[in-house]
Amino acid sequence: MSKYWSELTKKLDPYVPGEQPKDKKYVKLNTNENPYPPSPNVENILKGFQVDSLKLYPDPNADLLKDTLAKNYGVEKDNVFVGNGSDEVLAFAFMAFFNKNSRILFPDISYSFYPVYANIFDIPYETVKLKEDFTIPVKEFLKNNGGIVIPNPNAPTGIALTIEEIEEILKKNINTVVIIDEAYVDFGAESAVKLISKYENLLIIQTLSKSRSLAGIRVGYALGNKDLIEGLERVKNSINSYTIDRVSLMVAIESVKDNDYFEENCKKIIDTRTKVVSQLRKMEFEVCESSANFIFISHKTIKAELIFSRLKEEGVLVRFFNKERIDNFLRVTIGSPEEMEIFIEKIKTII
Amino acid sequence: MSKYWSELTKKLDPYVPGEQPKDKKYVKLNTNENPYPPSPNVENILKGFQVDSLKLYPDPNADLLKDTLAKNYGVEKDNVFVGNGSDEVLAFAFMAFFNKNSRILFPDISYSFYPVYANIFDIPYETVKLKEDFTIPVKEFLKNNGGIVIPNPNAPTGIALTIEEIEEILKKNINTVVIIDEAYVDFGAESAVKLISKYENLLIIQTLSKSRSLAGIRVGYALGNKDLIEGLERVKNSINSYTIDRVSLMVAIESVKDNDYFEENCKKIIDTRTKVVSQLRKMEFEVCESSANFIFISHKTIKAELIFSRLKEEGVLVRFFNKERIDNFLRVTIGSPEEMEIFIEKIKTII
Repeated sequence: MSKYWSELTKKLDPYVPGEQPKDKKYVKLNTNENPYPPSPNVENILKGFQVDSLKLYPDPNADLLKDTLAKNYGVEKDNVFVGNGSDEVLAFAFMAFFNKNSRILFPDISYSFYPVYANIFDIPYETVKLKEDFTIPVKEFLKNNGGIVIPNPNAPTGIALTIEEIEEILKKNINTVVIIDEAYVDFGAESAVKLISKYENLLIIQTLSKSRSLAGIRVGYALGNKDLIEGLERVKNSINSYTIDRVSLMVAIESVKDNDYFEENCKKIIDTRTKVVSQLRKMEFEVCESSANFIFISHKTIKAELIFSRLKEEGVLVRFFNKERIDNFLRVTIGSPEEMEIFIEKIKTII
Repeated sequence: MSKYWSELTKKLDPYVPGEQPKDKKYVKLNTNENPYPPSPNVENILKGFQVDSLKLYPDPNADLLKDTLAKNYGVEKDNVFVGNGSDEVLAFAFMAFFNKNSRILFPDISYSFYPVYANIFDIPYETVKLKEDFTIPVKEFLKNNGGIVIPNPNAPTGIALTIEEIEEILKKNINTVVIIDEAYVDFGAESAVKLISKYENLLIIQTLSKSRSLAGIRVGYALGNKDLIEGLERVKNSINSYTIDRVSLMVAIESVKDNDYFEENCKKIIDTRTKVVSQLRKMEFEVCESSANFIFISHKTIKAELIFSRLKEEGVLVRFFNKERIDNFLRVTIGSPEEMEIFIEKIKTII
């Protein structure tokens, strides 16, 4: 604690990302990265990149990327906001739409960055308790609130809401912004993009980090009615005019254009997930029904923390959250078939 | 204005960056970009980049880049913070060190993003009036305050403070953080880096956008005592864990290592500036004494706004600020000798 820190900084409780250890090479199943490389088009972009152009600022409005995303989702350009990863987009959305005098709602078991944003931007919140089976109690999101954030599928459970359930939440909250955080939607959940034209309170946030294999370039985006997008632009342009660099812009555009490759990879991951889930269930693991590129698992007799440590010793990293209700669970990213074979082998020796 | 915007968003008055027109090719002297390409090492980085690695998150702590910058400036790694351009670093610094109940100080004629940050983070401020000759009145920064931000050299004037003047400000403000924004320092001003070990209230902010010809990759950094750096890390990790992507990290590292190339370019720009200043003075222009890669000029008889419009028609973009005290001035980036010849030719036809 320093005397120079602002009152705000003193009370912060920053987010801690999954570890990125440098001591040895791990089978890394702890940060939900995609095991497959990005679209082959990305290679061409980097090889042919005009290095001289780096002396110039990027387009602050990222028009070409917005055009490409708009076309991809069948919306207009002014329905699209882009940012430096979906975390930045979420942070801007908290500033743009939530207030100091009205409690927002999000699930108690969810992305652990939400309370961090609420804290730094001084927004009061109430967590909605998931049911015993970790599904989201839709009715609890119909009470008075200053805004809602729900990941679909939820993290770290992987469990998805149906589009009808999301629509029910949107319909009953027409005066507040409902953020559906679709970071993992491409791995089996249904996107709410089609509801944008119907509900002006809906903001969808997605990312290229997971399903497009581009965690390394930091591009996330929001889709919603143009008033919401304009709110995000106002916040962004009060913090940083140029949030996405020239290389990332071009890489992102090429990646979004290559849907065949991306769909094929998503399908491979879903297939691997199906196989791994079946193997784990045979070994007395409880496995949540996942629509994401990770699974949330708990063993009937062996403590999650012990499995986590033993796996780490064996060179396999998964994510363990030492938090109430989920401290006997592990979140395991779905890697390549080869990585998951190693994971299953190690699990077998542990249990 | 949308009913969904937060109270904060409604009152924002976002920053407007220099225009990046797409209608035709301009001699672009309006956003202080460097006319020379980045270090030749950058080309090798892009050509040899392992595209597969983009599926993984970048190092959230940017350790290698911090090491490289620390070595370059003769400080320790924990004296270095890195961010997505110096604008983001400035925004985080406003959050980290300034409070809602104590007025900060910055010059009335200065980087126009400062009042925008103060506004979005609800920090009260007082502007200190520059002297008639646009130099900074050091004594005015010795009064009670909640923090200070001074660009050195100042923008858009290009006028620098001496290191002794900066030290006087630091010495008389030991209880508040003094930010010296050194975005343009490499073009002729003296850096205050050597004062970091002596003044724990000093935070220096620099960027690779200008002197390193890398506006396109978005990397800025702060240098200061480790408590200040930790404050910045706390804010950053409450907003976005991964602010710099994998490509930008590697490009930045290679660029910082190549000091010879960068010093040579700075020298070329200073030489061009000297020549252009002398030409303009002969044409009855008042030119502020610049230590930056831009000059701030005013003609004795012809209005700045008229010159701005005529130059634009002629395909030369400069920056005109329609603001009190400086609405008869133009800020002109020092481009290549060829670009400046065109600029001077066009000026001759206008006056």
